[in-house]
Order: sequence, then C-alpha cells, then structure tokens
Amino acid sequence: MNTFGQKLTLTTFGESHGVAIGGVLDGFPSGVKIDTDFLQNELDKRRPGRNKFATARNEADKVEIFSGVFEGVSTGTPIGFAIFNQNQKSNDYENLREIFRPGHADYTYFKKYAVRDHRGGGRSSARETAVRVVGGAFAQMMLDEFNITVKSGLLSVGDVKTNEFNWELAKNSEIFSLGNEDAMKELIMKVREEHDSIGACVLSVVSGAPTGLGEGLYDKLDARLAAAMMGVNGVKAIEIGEGINAAYLKGSQNNDQMGINGFYTNHSGGILGGMSNGEDIIVKSYFKPTPSIFKAQKTLNLNAKETEFELRGRHDPCIGVRGSVVATAMIRLVIADFMLLNLSSNIQNIKQIYR
Amino acid sequence: MNTFGQKLTLTTFGESHGVAIGGVLDGFPSGVKIDTDFLQNELDKRRPGRNKFATARNEADKVEIFSGVFEGVSTGTPIGFAIFNQNQKSNDYENLREIFRPGHADYTYFKKYAVRDHRGGGRSSARETAVRVVGGAFAQMMLDEFNITVKSGLLSVGDVKTNEFNWELAKNSEIFSLGNEDAMKELIMKVREEHDSIGACVLSVVSGAPTGLGEGLYDKLDARLAAAMMGVNGVKAIEIGEGINAAYLKGSQNNDQMGINGFYTNHSGGILGGMSNGEDIIVKSYFKPTPSIFKAQKTLNLNAKETEFELRGRHDPCIGVRGSVVATAMIRLVIADFMLLNLSSNIQNIKQIYR
Amino acid sequence: MNTFGQKLTLTTFGESHGVAIGGVLDGFPSGVKIDTDFLQNELDKRRPGRNKFATARNEADKVEIFSGVFEGVSTGTPIGFAIFNQNQKSNDYENLREIFRPGHADYTYFKKYAVRDHRGGGRSSARETAVRVVGGAFAQMMLDEFNITVKSGLLSVGDVKTNEFNWELAKNSEIFSLGNEDAMKELIMKVREEHDSIGACVLSVVSGAPTGLGEGLYDKLDARLAAAMMGVNGVKAIEIGEGINAAYLKGSQNNDQMGINGFYTNHSGGILGGMSNGEDIIVKSYFKPTPSIFKAQKTLNLNAKETEFELRGRHDPCIGVRGSVVATAMIRLVIADFMLLNLSSNIQNIKQIYR
Amino acid sequence: MNTFGQKLTLTTFGESHGVAIGGVLDGFPSGVKIDTDFLQNELDKRRPGRNKFATARNEADKVEIFSGVFEGVSTGTPIGFAIFNQNQKSNDYENLREIFRPGHADYTYFKKYAVRDHRGGGRSSARETAVRVVGGAFAQMMLDEFNITVKSGLLSVGDVKTNEFNWELAKNSEIFSLGNEDAMKELIMKVREEHDSIGACVLSVVSGAPTGLGEGLYDKLDARLAAAMMGVNGVKAIEIGEGINAAYLKGSQNNDQMGINGFYTNHSGGILGGMSNGEDIIVKSYFKPTPSIFKAQKTLNLNAKETEFELRGRHDPCIGVRGSVVATAMIRLVIADFMLLNLSSNIQNIKQIYR
Repeated sequence: MNTFGQKLTLTTFGESHGVAIGGVLDGFPSGVKIDTDFLQNELDKRRPGRNKFATARNEADKVEIFSGVFEGVSTGTPIGFAIFNQNQKSNDYENLREIFRPGHADYTYFKKYAVRDHRGGGRSSARETAVRVVGGAFAQMMLDEFNITVKSGLLSVGDVKTNEFNWELAKNSEIFSLGNEDAMKELIMKVREEHDSIGACVLSVVSGAPTGLGEGLYDKLDARLAAAMMGVNGVKAIEIGEGINAAYLKGSQNNDQMGINGFYTNHSGGILGGMSNGEDIIVKSYFKPTPSIFKAQKTLNLNAKETEFELRGRHDPCIGVRGSVVATAMIRLVIADFMLLNLSSNIQNIKQIYR
Repeated sequence: MNTFGQKLTLTTFGESHGVAIGGVLDGFPSGVKIDTDFLQNELDKRRPGRNKFATARNEADKVEIFSGVFEGVSTGTPIGFAIFNQNQKSNDYENLREIFRPGHADYTYFKKYAVRDHRGGGRSSARETAVRVVGGAFAQMMLDEFNITVKSGLLSVGDVKTNEFNWELAKNSEIFSLGNEDAMKELIMKVREEHDSIGACVLSVVSGAPTGLGEGLYDKLDARLAAAMMGVNGVKAIEIGEGINAAYLKGSQNNDQMGINGFYTNHSGGILGGMSNGEDIIVKSYFKPTPSIFKAQKTLNLNAKETEFELRGRHDPCIGVRGSVVATAMIRLVIADFMLLNLSSNIQNIKQIYR
Repeated sequence: MNTFGQKLTLTTFGESHGVAIGGVLDGFPSGVKIDTDFLQNELDKRRPGRNKFATARNEADKVEIFSGVFEGVSTGTPIGFAIFNQNQKSNDYENLREIFRPGHADYTYFKKYAVRDHRGGGRSSARETAVRVVGGAFAQMMLDEFNITVKSGLLSVGDVKTNEFNWELAKNSEIFSLGNEDAMKELIMKVREEHDSIGACVLSVVSGAPTGLGEGLYDKLDARLAAAMMGVNGVKAIEIGEGINAAYLKGSQNNDQMGINGFYTNHSGGILGGMSNGEDIIVKSYFKPTPSIFKAQKTLNLNAKETEFELRGRHDPCIGVRGSVVATAMIRLVIADFMLLNLSSNIQNIKQIYR
Repeated sequence: MNTFGQKLTLTTFGESHGVAIGGVLDGFPSGVKIDTDFLQNELDKRRPGRNKFATARNEADKVEIFSGVFEGVSTGTPIGFAIFNQNQKSNDYENLREIFRPGHADYTYFKKYAVRDHRGGGRSSARETAVRVVGGAFAQMMLDEFNITVKSGLLSVGDVKTNEFNWELAKNSEIFSLGNEDAMKELIMKVREEHDSIGACVLSVVSGAPTGLGEGLYDKLDARLAAAMMGVNGVKAIEIGEGINAAYLKGSQNNDQMGINGFYTNHSGGILGGMSNGEDIIVKSYFKPTPSIFKAQKTLNLNAKETEFELRGRHDPCIGVRGSVVATAMIRLVIADFMLLNLSSNIQNIKQIYR
C-alpha cells in the first residue's frame, strides 16, 4: 500500500501539513558506507523554495536518520528516517476543507476514506516525494559500489523541446534542462504569470546495470519502471526505448541486431523480455501540468453543490522540473531492488556465497 | 516473480513447448457462478491459428480446471488450471539452441539463468498469455456481479490509424479493429508477405468501476495498470487518459472541472491521485512489431561469435492483434484485485460485513 | 523482513541505543477514533523502570505520532510514529563491542551482517517490542468497534504455577499474574538476587472474534499466532488449545462435539482447520529465562578467542512479565489483520459494500 | 493465502476429491539437477494405502511436472506440477454434505465461504500435504548442493515415548519411529480397533545449515518454522530447542556458552535472535489425534439442528505418522527459502556475484 520494492523496500508515511514525513528503508545490505552529505544534497535538489521555478513554500528538508546506520556504515537493519515539516501555512488551505480541487486527489480520497486531511493535499501532496528522494539516495550509495549511474533531465516543457542530450547542462540547470534551457524557462515563467501551469517530459538513463535484472513475467524491469514512474504525482505516460514510436515500425526496423561488440542499436531501451540487456536503460516520463492553478474553476463541495473558486497557496508552475529529481530516485530504487532480487537466479551465484 | 496481483493473485507456469501452461488463481471469492463457456470463448479469441492474422500454430487451447469450483460455483479455494500443449513443432527451433534471436528474450534469459529452454522462446513466449486470459475471464465473472465492463480494440496498425471508437466493429472484427479495418488488415498482410512484422496501438476502456479503487502511493491504479500492460510481451509505452499530450497542455486546459452531473471532461482518464474517480478508465498500450521476422539478421551464438541467420516457424505478423485480448484480461485482473483490496478502506465498510 | 502482517502491516525500525525506535502502521482503516490516552497507557504497562520486576533502565516511552491521524480520527493513510531513546547508558556496553553474549543474538547478527551495533543488543534488543505495543494498541482501537478483547497473564514463573485464571488479579498485578502471585514474585526476586533469571509461561485469550478468521492453508490463524509469538524475544514454545496434551489424547477425547448452543468443549482452542470457530482463542507462550545474567560466562570474542566475562547493565530478571504485554499486542495485530483479510471471502460480503 | 515462502514460493491448489491437487514452485534457482526418482520416492513415503498404519485410500500419487525443468536441470522458471486424484470414493461422503464433522474444518469453511466441497474435507483434507512433499523434495535438491540435511521421526504415540534418537530405525520404520517402535505400533493398532485415533510427537532436525539464516524481527527462523509446522493439519504445539522446558529453567542453566569449538550446549535448538547459529536446528511438533473416528458423535447440520452420526470412510489412525514426512518437507522449504533470502544480507556477498 505505502511500500515500494520487493527486497529493498521503502515504506513511507506523512502528510503535507502533518508533523513529519518519513519512511523505513528495509532490506538495505550491511557494510555500505553512508554519505550523509550526498543524501542531503540530493534532497536539496528537490527542495521547495529553491528557486523561482519551484513552489515558494520554503522548507529546509533536513533529514534525520533514526536507525540502521552505525559508525558511518549501514548495519543491515531497517533505516528509519523523518523530515519534520516546518513552513506549513495550513490556513492557506482552510477554504479547501469543503471543496474538491479539480485535477487533485481530493475527491477520490474523500470517496474512499470518508475523511480527509485537506491541508495541502494531505497524503497526496507532492511533498511525499522528498521521502522517495531519501530512499533513492541510499539506493545510489549501494549502486555506487558497482559503478551504476542514474540521471534524469527535461526533454520538453509544453511544446518547447530539445533534441540535445546535454547532461552537463542538466546537472547545473535550475530546471535540469537537457537543452533549449532559456526557452523552457521562459515558458515556465510565462504560464506562471498567467496563473497557469504547464506539462513536461523527463528523460532518465541508467548506465552500467548488469544484464539479467528483472523477474519472470509479472515483475519485469520495464513493468516495474513503468509502475514506479506512473506512481509519481502527475505522470500520465511512460515510454521505454523506442516507446510509442515502436508501434509505427516494422520488425526489421525495430529489432536490435547483435555483434561481438554488443547490440548495434538500442531501440529496446536496454530491456528484452523484461530483463536488462546490458545497454543503457532509457525511460521517458510525461508529466501533466500542475493542477493547482490560480484561475477560477468549477467544482463540487462536500454538500454536492457546484461552486466556483480560485486557489491560493504556493505551487510549482511545472511539476516536471522537480519530478526529474524524483524520477532519478525512483529508478535508483528499482535498479537496486532488482540487483538484490537477482542474486538467487542461478545455483552458481548462490554457491559463490555459501562456499 | 510469476505472480500477478495482491489479493486476487494469478500465479502462472509453463513454457511454449513444455507439457502444459497453467496457473493458480487465488483469492477469488466464493459464491461466484462459473461460466465455463464464457471462459473458453475468451480463450478462443486469443487462440493461435484462428485466422490468417495470427500465427499458424494451431492449438485447441482447451482449459482444464482442477480445483476451486464445486457444482458450478466458486468455493473460495484456489482455482488451479492447465492448458496442455499439443501442436508443438519443437524441431522448428532446434536451430535456435545455439543463437540469440534479436528482439527476443533469448539473450537476457541465458545471461540470467545460464540455462534456457530455447524451444519457441520457452517461458518468454507469448503463449503464456493464454493463462492470463483464463485469469482475466474469471475476474470478469466477478466483475459481472457489479456490471463492470472492460473492452479493448485496435486504434492503429503501423501508421494506419482510426479516430472512430467503433466498439461494435471491434467485437466482431478478426483483428479487433476500432475503425479503418480494411486498411489495417491490408497492412498486416503486406508486412507478412514481406516476411516482416508491424507494431500497433490498443485502446482499453473500463466502465462502471466504483470510485476509490487504487491504493496509497505505491500501488496506484494507474501505476498498476501501467505495470500490467508493460508486462505484456511487446508493449513499449503506456498512456492514461490524455497521456503524452498532457505534457503539452496547460493546467487550465488539462484539469477536469466538476459539476453536479460529474466531471465536465475526462482528460485524467478516470484516475485522480492514483484512484478511480468514477469516469471511464482509459488506457492506451503501444505494441512493438513482432521480433520474429523471416529476414536475415545478425546475432551472437553461444560461443559469442557473430552469425547471420533466418528464422523459421510460425508467428503473428502483428502481436498487437492478440495483444488486445490480453490487454482486456490484464485490466480485468487489476480492477477485480482493487475491488477486493478496497473493501477495508474505511471502518463503515467493515462494519457492514461484521454486523 | 521488518514488517508484520498482510493487510494491516507494522513496519518497524530502531536500535536499543540509537536515536529512536518507531514504525509505520499501514492498512489501518479510516474513521477509527484514536485514543492517545489508551495508547500511552498500553505503552506504560511495558515501560522499563516501572517497578522492581523490570529492568532499571528508566524510559518515559512517550510515543510521537507523525501522520495518519487528523482531528482525532484515523484517515486511512499510514500512521508513522517514533519513541525517542533517552536513558541510554551506552558506555555500559562498551565492553561488549568485542564479545558475543551467550543466549543473545550477538553472534548470529555478526555472522550475518559482518557489522553490528553492540550497544544493548542493537536491533535485537527487547526495546523494539515497545513499537509492537504501539501497533497492538492501534489494532485494539479497531477491535473495540466489534467488542473483541485480547488479554494475557502469567500462568507460571519457573516452577511456580497457577491453575486459577484470575483475570482481575492479572489486570492489577505488577507481574500480570493469573494467580499464586506472591510466590511468583518471590521467585523472581530470589533469582534476581542470585544474579540469575527465570523463564515463564504466558496465557493469552481472545474473546468475541468472528468465525472464519484465518486464510487457506499457509496463513492459518494458528500458524500466524505461532509465528507472532515465536517472533517475540525469548519465546521457545507455543501451544494452541489443548497444545502438547493433544498428542497424548484419543480422538474421542479431543474432538469438540457441537450442539445448538455451540461447542460442548474447547480442546481446539477456538481454531478448526486454521480458522476461528467462534469460541475463545487460547494461546500459551513459553519464555526462556533472560539471557542477560550477572554471572561469569564463557564466550568467544571477535578474534575467535575464548574468554570469560561478567555482564553489567540493567535487565529484566524474567522477560515473561513484560512479554505478557507484548503477547497481547501481537495477538491484537493478528486478529485485526485477519478481520481485514476476511472481508473478501465471499461475494455476499463484497456486495454489501458495493451496493 | 495458498502460498508458502517469500523467495522460494510454493502455491498450491486442489481438493481431496477434485480433479487434481498440485502447485507452482517459484523462485527455484536454475542449474539444479532434478532427480525425479528422489521426488517420487519422497511422495511414496507419504502415500496413502502404503501400509496398515495409514488410511486405506490407495493412491498412486504420481506427480506430473509441467514446466521449469529442461533436459534434467531446473531453468529458473516456475515449476508447475499436479497429482491427479484417482481412488476417490466420493459417495462415502454424501452423508457429510449436511453435517459438520467434529474436529474438522467443515464448520469454519462453511461459515467463511458459505459454500463448501464436503467430499473428504475438500481443500482442508490432509491430501493437500502431498503437494508440500513435492515442494520439499525440490527444496532438498537445492539443499543437497550444500550438504544440508533434514530428517524427522516419531518421539511419541499417545503416552508411548522414546528417549532414543535412532535415526537408522526411523529411516526404515513403517511409522518413522525413533525408538520403542513395537509399542508405538501396538498402540496405533489398538486405537484403530477401538474405532478411535491417537496423537503423536514428531522430532525434526536440520544439520549443516549456515549461520545467519532468518530475517529481522518478523520473519525469524523460529517464527517461520513454528508457522510452517502449525500450518500442518493437526499440529497443536511447537517447541524449538529446550521448548517448554526453558520456561522452568534459570538463565545460568539455559544459556549456551561458547568456546573455540563452538557452543558447549544446544539448549537454544540452533537459533539465536531468530537466526541459525550453526548448530543443529531442533523442532518438535505435537499432532492431535485424527478427528475422523468411527464412534457416534454429536454435531450440527446445515439447518442448525443437533444430530448424532457415525463417520464412514478411510482414515489414518495417527496423523503424526505421515505428518513426519510432511514435517521434513516443510522444514526443507523454510531452510531453502532463507538460504535464498540471506544472499543479500551484506555488500560483501553481493560483490562476490557482480564481479
């Protein structure tokens, strides 16, 4: 329900305007060096109030680790952690107690649970993704032992696109842009001034993953990546490798033939039969525009009466920007999980350990 | 690993050219009328050798139920079943023992397991989807009690598209076409004659599902649907509702406002915050072209030497066609599973049962 | 790994001398009134330093709830909580860094993880059971809605036994004694003065549970209760109903015959075929003596050299006493979990909800 | 629900008088030599109709493997299998359609599911344990690679006990007796002639298991063993190591001190802190007498009227006898599962595989 992963599991809790958000990362192997600077640095990338392209809610997002680390090294026991909420302007949300915001989870949560924490979206707030970033950073510390990298950047904002894959730019860009950065920024600022918001596409690439990650038929690597990304707030479409374009191709165009130096092409996006094939793993995630806009909208209230309202509060004009940080985190968690699951795939592996 | 679902679980086994394929459906409630004609009818839609648009491998695909049904009604105990393989031309595959077919799972399975049943793809064969269709048909028998329907059809074959949503046509079409059927068929026949294959897009729609299906943050309805469909052989992209297009829209365009008669629009595809909102649930799945083509291709053999070969055997020219039947099955399983998971969402529900 | 339950899951973290212990309770239905006084009261029963029959480590054991509760009612989202450690005399344990205490988990944790938090047993400390008590108290708030009660008390301390089942006494007894309290206390004080410890037997009884709790063959109610109790630190044997005695009986003696007023006897301990039968559910748990004793013992150190040492620190002379509180908590979690799992057993139940 | 294990999972199906019983063993590593003679031999030990100490129902119990094995070796894909039922005298049970047999699951299944397959206990029949024996035999083929053995035998039948641990005798004994065989047999024959039945105690021992098997706090090795054995039909009590006796001992008596040659004693039964410590793992399981007796008993019928009846049919006079074979199977499954789960406990292990 609120747990992600099979062997490396991240269980999360917390509401946008509650006491704290946090989680338990379980199944993390012992003996991994824990780099708290890296951890905080990853969180800072996602931190609200960081620049004008993110919400003005200003949170320090300082993570406190409660367990599972001893003298700088993981112990194999669960890593409990929390981020205490600070800059909560819950009053901003008092007017939302009685209504369902369009494009948000207000209506569905209420229908399911009959009660709801209306402040800032409660559990469904994008604030929860900070916990995912913590989990992803730990996962990366494990992946570092195997020189596996995961990176994400913006391919498009609205109809402003790029065909560059400028990862150096993305690393230093305030919006993680892979190219055409100025035009992207301009569009974000423009919709913000219009009290509106805009969608975006995020590209993620995994390099260095071993071959054979992915389980059987119902826990395929691509299925898990799709679920991971579709589970991020606002994502409405996922492509692996050639993606939608594959539906327009012939087999002779789409097949990746092999030679002694590996695959000649990578239409598959690094995944064959649900398992990694040693090539770069390529995932594209499409984010809808932030549903929080400051324009008049029609909706229902708790008495099932139609009403028109205008949102107040602080919101990202383009959730894809910070979504790019979350994408990296989720994919790190997926790859690390499959690394652990894969250990028992054949008896030769197992014998190497129980010698 | 080979289990799908949380509460209603389908665990499957079987290789393309082994003794049998089959599965165990567990968590199915007691007291559901079991309609074996409907079950066989669903299987027949997916059956190979059914017409010229599917592989010529001719299997009766007769399902045998071993348990869980007593005097025509489900008993709440696990439903074990198998489909025995018959028309196995394993010799067709002897030449594949030593090589990895491009676009197939041969290479990744071998890297993972160090042994592999090379006959017809073994476990990774699309033949396994017959088991999913059985599971989906049982799920539908449960959904029937609540008047929930799931349907799928072809929106495009290669670059032949349709903007019709002619479900009557799809029901009777040999290729489950939603429109522009003749052109779609023509293209499939053309690539077949060229010894090639072609991709396709499948549209699926769920009607009548209750509001609130979908769990917390890591088992969202859209995440599970994405995983379900990305786990179907050959699927490379998934869209929910507006899908990729949402990334190009503004919030004021994409939000679905509400009125007393429900949502004014359905850009969201029936899912808000990971939960069903009572509108039709809309999923698009993009299938790559069948990797089995009868043209010369380069690949590696078991000795890591490059080799050129031409496939023989019997294959679908467009896996999207039969994939449409599998899409319906998988989505039925997802919806039925969430119906069961949802029962405990609030104490009012629970009290209705333990009165 | 560190998660208990299927539908109502308690995921815990924390080491004895770390920053905090805590957990996430997930799957708890919305709409349950949260009674924080009851919660703290349950914790106080287990609290160390409470009286001379428990360890002298004096902890306030104040629980902080981070999420999942809004305006006094559960929201259906995960309940995150922590108990911060305070009275940590870690220096008491510095001499344990290099040795493995007999009867403790020191050796096995080190063999498994290659690193270990040696302070007070780290993760394997009985301190973690405070988290279980929190989970159990929440579970009871749900069980209260159905008038289901769970109680536990001491049947024996060493060879001092009772045949009374004086639940009023147990409620007010410092050692939760079901009878023969003075002799039990005397024995505990005697072994304490000898720098030794003593075992005990705890009886637990569930009243008011509905019939039919327990799943299929591999998640039977008795199997889950056995796992729950055997998973409590120090438990070495479990009996359900007639228990060991059943092995000495004939079928004609052990069968519980039925009449219009229910079962004539309850040899089965309220469980038939792995499911509750409506009678009281009877569980006995046998606790070993606390392994921490203040006598010279032989053991190995990290250099695999034999050494003799004497423990210092603060310990319970009889872990069965506080184990009785933990027993109640674990059984509450089991019963609440099966209440939720059971909702989907038959289609009639389901139809009551989706009307 | 009907699945046992975490990483090595056995999912089973089938009713006593249905078409077949069977299962899917998933997570079994590739590359293990499959010995079908051993498999059938294990099944034969449990086979009904084998001698006068078991039920007269005569079943060949021939297992058919459907998948997961190729050219004599496991492939890492799920192993599907079935045992078709043959000697079904369902008419023997027609008189049970309307009544609940005392000591059986008839009443609880009916209360839970509202329908029930009354023939021979349906799903709750001990016949299902044949499937567990198949699973256990596969698990042993994996354990063989590490020289790990599991054995079980009878310590008592009613009040006829033995203090011998004569494993040679047990191997060849028709009742798997560990000593005092003639007296045990005599008692079984005596109760059979009285149309009654009798309980028994089974001892199981695991040798050669590596140190560190068992997970965290809620999937302890002893907890899992307890659940595994309590989940076997008719088991009412479980002891690990010193078991109940530990509750009567002092810490100074019960602690296992260590020296350079390992532990001086094994009161713990090979498990410390929920993990294996390298010593023999010792489990005792107590079976109640077979509830099926041929004496008049009072019960209810479907109309909630009290009735007296006498059972007919074919039954074991002492379920502990064949229960001994099932005990071995379940413990094999547990040990093999933890071997696989344990692979990821520390980063050193993982690095040995991904070099």
